[in-house]
Amino acid sequence: MTFDPATLVYDDRGLIPAIAQQDGTGEVLMMAWMNAESVARTLETGRVTYWSRSRQSFWVKGESSGHVQELVDLRVDCDRDCLLVVVNQTGPACHTNRRSCFYTGVRDGEEVELMAPESAA
Amino acid sequence: MTFDPATLVYDDRGLIPAIAQQDGTGEVLMMAWMNAESVARTLETGRVTYWSRSRQSFWVKGESSGHVQELVDLRVDCDRDCLLVVVNQTGPACHTNRRSCFYTGVRDGEEVELMAPESAA
Repeated sequence: MTFDPATLVYDDRGLIPAIAQQDGTGEVLMMAWMNAESVARTLETGRVTYWSRSRQSFWVKGESSGHVQELVDLRVDCDRDCLLVVVNQTGPACHTNRRSCFYTGVRDGEEVELMAPESAA
Repeated sequence: MTFDPATLVYDDRGLIPAIAQQDGTGEVLMMAWMNAESVARTLETGRVTYWSRSRQSFWVKGESSGHVQELVDLRVDCDRDCLLVVVNQTGPACHTNRRSCFYTGVRDGEEVELMAPESAA
């Protein structure tokens, strides 16, 4: 069946959550949002492209930072209301300069920082 | 710092997306939603507990199917508006009886089924 981004289930803002996972290691890097056009652009260009809710514009991941996400695989969930993008991440995915946005763990009721920012090259 | 579910960022329905990932393999199993009380219950019980938007009730994953998720680690992202729950999943996570909900890949513009339902024991 031909994939059509219009067949995905978007929320009332026209957005669908997209989970980015590093190919190979399986590390979950971040979660951001896409609209139908950013799904199409991601597939066309091979560069993961989100929709920025704060800027209300397309967000080609890494366009300014260089920390791009090269698309390896795009997956759709059973309800068609969530995407998994398997990527090759260049540099840190997080704006805090950490590899992943999920660097805070909850251990015995306390927040623990699990990952330090990477130093600049 | 003591973790308080009230410090997370919820949407206008009072919900936060939670990504479930299998411990060890890193496989992304599903994405569902939690409210502050289901975050608290997940931590208290060690059983991952979502909020069902369709049923408008707490959803202790696997309560009816037996396909429970034992909490290994709960992580908070940089914006505090997304959770990653690292789990030990018993049986398939997906209601279609597949290990993961993300069983459909997009390859060369076509939808491809990457994973078959598991057969009943």
